[in-house]
Amino acid sequence: MVKKIKKVALFGGTHGNEMTGIYLVKKFLQNPFLLERSTLEVFPFLSNPKAIRLRVRYTEIDLNRCFAPEDLENLDNILYEQLLAKTIHQKLLNNQINFVVDLHSTTANMGLTIILSDTNNFHLQLCSYLSLIYPELKVLYYVSTEQNKLLRSNTELGLTIEVGAIPQRVLDADLFVKTEQVIYSLLDYLDKYNQNQIEEKSHNLVFYEVFERIDYPRKGEEITAMIHPNLQSKDYQPVNSGDPLFITFEGETITYQGDSTVYPVFINEAAYYEKGIAMCFTKKQKITVKFNDYQ
Amino acid sequence: MVKKIKKVALFGGTHGNEMTGIYLVKKFLQNPFLLERSTLEVFPFLSNPKAIRLRVRYTEIDLNRCFAPEDLENLDNILYEQLLAKTIHQKLLNNQINFVVDLHSTTANMGLTIILSDTNNFHLQLCSYLSLIYPELKVLYYVSTEQNKLLRSNTELGLTIEVGAIPQRVLDADLFVKTEQVIYSLLDYLDKYNQNQIEEKSHNLVFYEVFERIDYPRKGEEITAMIHPNLQSKDYQPVNSGDPLFITFEGETITYQGDSTVYPVFINEAAYYEKGIAMCFTKKQKITVKFNDYQ
Repeated sequence: MVKKIKKVALFGGTHGNEMTGIYLVKKFLQNPFLLERSTLEVFPFLSNPKAIRLRVRYTEIDLNRCFAPEDLENLDNILYEQLLAKTIHQKLLNNQINFVVDLHSTTANMGLTIILSDTNNFHLQLCSYLSLIYPELKVLYYVSTEQNKLLRSNTELGLTIEVGAIPQRVLDADLFVKTEQVIYSLLDYLDKYNQNQIEEKSHNLVFYEVFERIDYPRKGEEITAMIHPNLQSKDYQPVNSGDPLFITFEGETITYQGDSTVYPVFINEAAYYEKGIAMCFTKKQKITVKFNDYQ
Repeated sequence: MVKKIKKVALFGGTHGNEMTGIYLVKKFLQNPFLLERSTLEVFPFLSNPKAIRLRVRYTEIDLNRCFAPEDLENLDNILYEQLLAKTIHQKLLNNQINFVVDLHSTTANMGLTIILSDTNNFHLQLCSYLSLIYPELKVLYYVSTEQNKLLRSNTELGLTIEVGAIPQRVLDADLFVKTEQVIYSLLDYLDKYNQNQIEEKSHNLVFYEVFERIDYPRKGEEITAMIHPNLQSKDYQPVNSGDPLFITFEGETITYQGDSTVYPVFINEAAYYEKGIAMCFTKKQKITVKFNDYQ
């Protein structure tokens, strides 16, 4: 049984070139009443003001890969974002935050996505509630490795809202408004939950589980192919054996050769070229979520 | 009468985060036979290898604003891109280049666009030829100011190929292939021209002339509104008085108030937030281009 959610932290600008979250948090900082709910306090934060000012993802190292406990404790970690991560972690502790929402955008055509690091029943119930309001919303289960802990991993409960396709450094008004609406619905849910007012009984939830990260074909460090036009912008669509994944600069198609159907996401995310990720393969999962059955 | 075009320089990576041109030039450097034409030499160049390596538009100052004659001559201009511009200018002189093609991409939905700094008859004939082959191709007439000379301004003849919508740091295979085809057609034209083999007689060419640059609504330096969803991705579409341009973060629509119809381009270009440009207004022009009538 999850205890009540009293304090929520809402982060934008964990990556300084993802404008949706940055401008939403700026809006909330100027209009705090928008986040007021009777049973909870919500704290909007700009995660990395220095990167935001420079309009870059990060200045020295990806902040959203700096939250592993051993990294937070390591006194030799003195890159800017490593130091910043320690402060953010301490701020979450001091404020007794028990739910983190981290706002991101992607150049991949992922629409409105909730990313979970943990499929506990509380998260699944919340996602069920949101997907009943927003049928287009996708739920992505993406476990962060021990060495690669994310901002949302700082608390037991928390999630990322990932929206796209949006280029880096660009605001998209349509996705800005949709993200804002999802945030309000999420806070409404937490508020209702705290008051035992959740009415749903059960719901068949579809989610996508990341199980493999696929790099671009490369020669040395240099990529030798692009995302195939047939796959571009087709996040969450099924890919079967023989379907195209890449096209080389000379025009040769490279196909998927696996046996099982996969559902790629983060297709052609700009920031992942350097991380060696052209897309993430997911499995499509269905689960019956029961409400009022907290684990 | 324009003399024959003997030497063409083809630039990619003038902005280091615009991948289409960078990877096309890399392809041509590895496969020089692709650019071979009987009457001309084509030199592919990576304009700013340092910015390309860092995957940034520029390292210190926008290279594509460093080509004004007084800037090239100014010995106190020692920012990296200012120095680089001097070298590129000298390289063009030493190699007796008489036509420059500069490859760019934009986050605006401009499709395949040829940008001209000068509507001399030679340029218009070339664009007519290309638009007969590629009906979707747009021609944009955008005069660079004396203080803001571009790479394509280094030679009397030259143009920019601008393709989008593509996020910064991302390759789009479809637009990669289309850009490549336009380059081949352009070289074919120059080759035919050199041999007096241009057959067209006259053609009604549509082009769009930039006459005003529109900034985001701001309070101090901070933007207070986004491109309106109805205008997003609608480059080259007509906007009339009362049509929406922006939406504030609070949801208020800001409309166009001018009398004449305008055709905005560079709508929501990522790199133009810092330049104070939300879009460029253009006038739609029609001209009858006569061939074999060189001025």
